[in-house]
Amino acid sequence: MRAVFASKDGFFNRSVASPVIRSNDVKVTVDATSINPHDIKAMTQLSDNNEVVYGYDVVGHISAIGNAVKHFNVGQRVIYSGTDKRQGSFAEEQVVDEKLIAKVDDHFSDIQLAGIPLVGLTAYELLFEQMNFIASKNANTGKKLLVINGAGGVGSILTQLAHWSGLIVFATASPNHFQGLLRNKVDTVVDYHKALRPQLNTFVDGTAILSNLDDYFDAAVQLTLPHGIIGTTVSSKEGIQFSKLFEKSLTLASEMVFTKANTHFRDETQGQILKFLINLMTLGEIKPVISKVISGGITAKNLSHAANILSTSHAAGKIIILNRPCK
Amino acid sequence: MRAVFASKDGFFNRSVASPVIRSNDVKVTVDATSINPHDIKAMTQLSDNNEVVYGYDVVGHISAIGNAVKHFNVGQRVIYSGTDKRQGSFAEEQVVDEKLIAKVDDHFSDIQLAGIPLVGLTAYELLFEQMNFIASKNANTGKKLLVINGAGGVGSILTQLAHWSGLIVFATASPNHFQGLLRNKVDTVVDYHKALRPQLNTFVDGTAILSNLDDYFDAAVQLTLPHGIIGTTVSSKEGIQFSKLFEKSLTLASEMVFTKANTHFRDETQGQILKFLINLMTLGEIKPVISKVISGGITAKNLSHAANILSTSHAAGKIIILNRPCK
Repeated sequence: MRAVFASKDGFFNRSVASPVIRSNDVKVTVDATSINPHDIKAMTQLSDNNEVVYGYDVVGHISAIGNAVKHFNVGQRVIYSGTDKRQGSFAEEQVVDEKLIAKVDDHFSDIQLAGIPLVGLTAYELLFEQMNFIASKNANTGKKLLVINGAGGVGSILTQLAHWSGLIVFATASPNHFQGLLRNKVDTVVDYHKALRPQLNTFVDGTAILSNLDDYFDAAVQLTLPHGIIGTTVSSKEGIQFSKLFEKSLTLASEMVFTKANTHFRDETQGQILKFLINLMTLGEIKPVISKVISGGITAKNLSHAANILSTSHAAGKIIILNRPCK
Repeated sequence: MRAVFASKDGFFNRSVASPVIRSNDVKVTVDATSINPHDIKAMTQLSDNNEVVYGYDVVGHISAIGNAVKHFNVGQRVIYSGTDKRQGSFAEEQVVDEKLIAKVDDHFSDIQLAGIPLVGLTAYELLFEQMNFIASKNANTGKKLLVINGAGGVGSILTQLAHWSGLIVFATASPNHFQGLLRNKVDTVVDYHKALRPQLNTFVDGTAILSNLDDYFDAAVQLTLPHGIIGTTVSSKEGIQFSKLFEKSLTLASEMVFTKANTHFRDETQGQILKFLINLMTLGEIKPVISKVISGGITAKNLSHAANILSTSHAAGKIIILNRPCK
């Protein structure tokens, strides 16, 4: 099969054997994928001669199942994010543990679905598992959430999920993204170029930091209510000053979407969360945010193009790559 | 009235005016108090000419009430921890906001009650508010907690509360404290001189770090289950490496007992928690752990003596100072 490898010098096409299926795996023909900041960041950290197939968003069809697979059959359409410990989705075919995947019907297109898994799982887990908000419609009414970087992939879904769950949502972005933020159910847009405090004019129960933890840690400490929670998907380069949390008895929660799959801890919940998200999409409560669709196949050329857009344009929403060869 | 001031050189007695009562305050005649590591640590950080009355444990009697006080009357016996922003309990009299206090009857002696407030509030808030375990009998059955430093004041109450709530409790200490730990409902005692992992032979849902965060942070990351929580009452001197949390998507929760009073955030819950703890004591579910009683009054001499014991002997449990003058 064709796979697109990443090296420190960029993407390149290569023909490789179809991946080997284990007893709990399904094999999937990838219909569409998406590129994430994770892929680009990991690529820059590759050493010489290190070549990896990235890609952690899939909508596809099952072509084979392992002998212990219980809940899926050949021919079914599925979505998933997977794990960064196995070959990613920048390939014609991929194998994935059945616990991590969810069935989807034909209600939504490949374009609508391909960008959901990684950002949807991250946003759900951060908000409803790590930050302890309640995953039920209007269950958090009266509470307030600040999102640092509301315009990115995770932010775009997280603000919609937060709104659905009843939270009043404040989110930072550049003013050119304000219209998009409002469409994604942000109540108060906050210009990240200016001081945050006067723009909020309130304190929040929780702050989700989706980029630049080092830059925004102090602001989060300042703006979060006592006994509140700061949740983050991004790590600190400099090492944060944990002592600052004590004055307000704050909590700091980390979210890494591959934890469950990599540690085999509650990994079946990822399939369940994807099902839950698809249901919310069907009900019209959340919508995928797509900035660009690239057709013509999952190729080195198309992935380089997508990576360039993601790196340089501060794109709001997802870049989808359809696995249809050029005609 | 007599008050015991702390300076960088030690404690000294001084006569001062009785503290001024505000509308939401009660004035309390201090019958007994206790000394905490907090007091000693704060004392070492005093600058020249800086003199403070510490003390954050009281059992006493109300001698006057402010004009807005709703729930208390003159003559009632109460306990509380208070706030480090006002004069502490190392004095004949003290004023405190009524939200922070709880009534007690004569079922327990001054000795039994005087050491409860600060460690009880800290243990309750850490376990049931910050670490999200459920504050109900046997509600956390099947879950596991590791306590770093189970023998100290907070540890002594925390392990009992954890056991009552259904947790399986592992706690570190020096072997000479193992009998005390077992009396305080620790299931598995862990020698802190040796590697922790082989002694536990399991992973835990949460780790409470009650001393030496810098020394035990890595062990807590290793021993806590994915998506688990590390709670701590102690800050880091060196600045912890937050990036280590991401592999398991761990959460780090801080607990500082004065947060509520100092920020006026849910401060009424402190009176409620003290009531709850007294009720658990009455039911025999938790017991105060007292290592030493000093009678003869809250004086500079007695407090110096208590501080010396606390600093040098690794005392398990509380040192109580009774406010009865020498005969």
